[in-house]
Amino acid sequence: MRSIVIKNLFIKVAISRRIYLKTSLLEKLMQIKIGKGLILNQGLPKGFIITDRNIAKIYSSLINKREKFVISPGEKSKNFANYKKILKCLCKSNVNQIIALGGGVVGDLAGFAASTYKRGISLIHIPTSFLAMVDSSVGGKTGINLNGNKNYVGTFYQPDAILIDPLFLKTLPEEEFRNGVAEVIKYSMMFGKPNLDDVEDIIKECCKIKMKVVEKDERDKGYRHVLNFGHTIGHGIELLGKLKHGEAISIGMVKESELGELLGYVKKGKSEELKEILKLNHLPTNMPNINVNKIIELIKKDKKGSLVFAFNKKDYDVRVSEEMVRKVIQHK
Amino acid sequence: MRSIVIKNLFIKVAISRRIYLKTSLLEKLMQIKIGKGLILNQGLPKGFIITDRNIAKIYSSLINKREKFVISPGEKSKNFANYKKILKCLCKSNVNQIIALGGGVVGDLAGFAASTYKRGISLIHIPTSFLAMVDSSVGGKTGINLNGNKNYVGTFYQPDAILIDPLFLKTLPEEEFRNGVAEVIKYSMMFGKPNLDDVEDIIKECCKIKMKVVEKDERDKGYRHVLNFGHTIGHGIELLGKLKHGEAISIGMVKESELGELLGYVKKGKSEELKEILKLNHLPTNMPNINVNKIIELIKKDKKGSLVFAFNKKDYDVRVSEEMVRKVIQHK
Repeated sequence: MRSIVIKNLFIKVAISRRIYLKTSLLEKLMQIKIGKGLILNQGLPKGFIITDRNIAKIYSSLINKREKFVISPGEKSKNFANYKKILKCLCKSNVNQIIALGGGVVGDLAGFAASTYKRGISLIHIPTSFLAMVDSSVGGKTGINLNGNKNYVGTFYQPDAILIDPLFLKTLPEEEFRNGVAEVIKYSMMFGKPNLDDVEDIIKECCKIKMKVVEKDERDKGYRHVLNFGHTIGHGIELLGKLKHGEAISIGMVKESELGELLGYVKKGKSEELKEILKLNHLPTNMPNINVNKIIELIKKDKKGSLVFAFNKKDYDVRVSEEMVRKVIQHK
Repeated sequence: MRSIVIKNLFIKVAISRRIYLKTSLLEKLMQIKIGKGLILNQGLPKGFIITDRNIAKIYSSLINKREKFVISPGEKSKNFANYKKILKCLCKSNVNQIIALGGGVVGDLAGFAASTYKRGISLIHIPTSFLAMVDSSVGGKTGINLNGNKNYVGTFYQPDAILIDPLFLKTLPEEEFRNGVAEVIKYSMMFGKPNLDDVEDIIKECCKIKMKVVEKDERDKGYRHVLNFGHTIGHGIELLGKLKHGEAISIGMVKESELGELLGYVKKGKSEELKEILKLNHLPTNMPNINVNKIIELIKKDKKGSLVFAFNKKDYDVRVSEEMVRKVIQHK
């Protein structure tokens, strides 16, 4: 399987010390099951499949002869038109369970449909991207975009099960894999988690961390903001710089940890270490050429609050002056 | 204020024995406040108003100069187009609280928008119809219709407050008032509640009953089905006979209590008594001229289950044979 290059202070590489996490808590809470071949060898559970064209093509034998709705890959598919089309399909087919087979886009859209059709039907997440496995499939956020505003319409809706088959990663494009790596590095930065190198173990660890956060604050009213590290500036970069989510988050984390250092929330030197790890994982660390005023405007309009940042497990709702944010963004 | 003609066995008329209910439990649970003049004398709370053209016309001074979205009155407004328009308005106005000022249609649509905009913002219900005051504003059901299927898209979402001002009833058309009376009679039929004649007291009692039911089963998985009495057949009558909700429920209750008597779930003679009370309140009790096969098909497709009926507090998920249902519907 693939590996992630990560070193000291974050997720330490230590092949000799593989840690196998107990998943009983997870399984109890949310029926998260992780295992190689769980889907690709054993097949899909029953239900109406929502997936994207890439997955439908690569895994055609898996979804053959099944009722399904296939979207175009990419964030743009999280729109009203698809949402409505899916609901109409569900209505015709008399469906009572949805299988979200795909990455974050499929999961968000399918989750929103499942949460609102007949006021909520059963939902099974089968994440196929690394990002969805380590992050977006867990926690119950669903959503579509509205007028270019990301996830402005959605719900909190916990799936009945999350079935993670790491074998899906074999066919995942490299840049998609890096998207997930950026989130893994976020978790290690915020929660300082242990020595892991096996992809399956890393998925387990990330799911466990996220579940603990979600348990404390499902509705994202406070503590869950801790997961926003890198995302406040990152979302702006993603939108304006037209970068992949992971790339934008990578740069966002660098900028936000620099901001944290300036303000005393992050230990001196940590942003340099973060940069090195990101580079080792082929993730970008320098700001792309985008207008500072535009990104500041976007950060001000953030759904979670205006100019609010998460720096660590305790300081996750820190309001920062526009001047300071501007300074850090402009810093080379 | 208006009065309801109700006699023995259901809500007994007993002017001398007015019962004032404690609303502390309700207020604690869901911030239900009931009082004459609560809105019409004290004004509306802040927030983006969703209302219908009738209310907007009659109470123009109340909503003057306020940000608002005004729908056409009637069930047809619970559609996708309005839902999307509302979301776009919310997005433009940077709203964080919605005021649902109206009857059931406004409440369902506004509630669905509030529950999904930014994954849920604050929602205040201000019911203006008797039906909404005694029933639909309480319990957190939201929804719009899909392909002619009632409430096929929606959520469970509790409002932050329900502010009930009975003075709104002064301008409510008679047939709209009767809609609410039908639901009140449903409550008294199922829960055998006490001697009340004052409209404000009746609202309090109904809210209290509904809250207790919702507390036990918010997501409508079992016990909440008890509130379906009259609605299984009633929904079919409403759709096919093009009757008002209250009228359809009135006939539905008669038919379902006849069914209950036949099967031994309802005491002999109760459906005759129910008929008398409904007639006293100018509600219809005879089946309109509609095709039996069509109504049976609708009952089979019911969101809550196929041919399932609620007869009393204990028997609320009774599956009945098609033959029996057909017999009762055809009985004059």
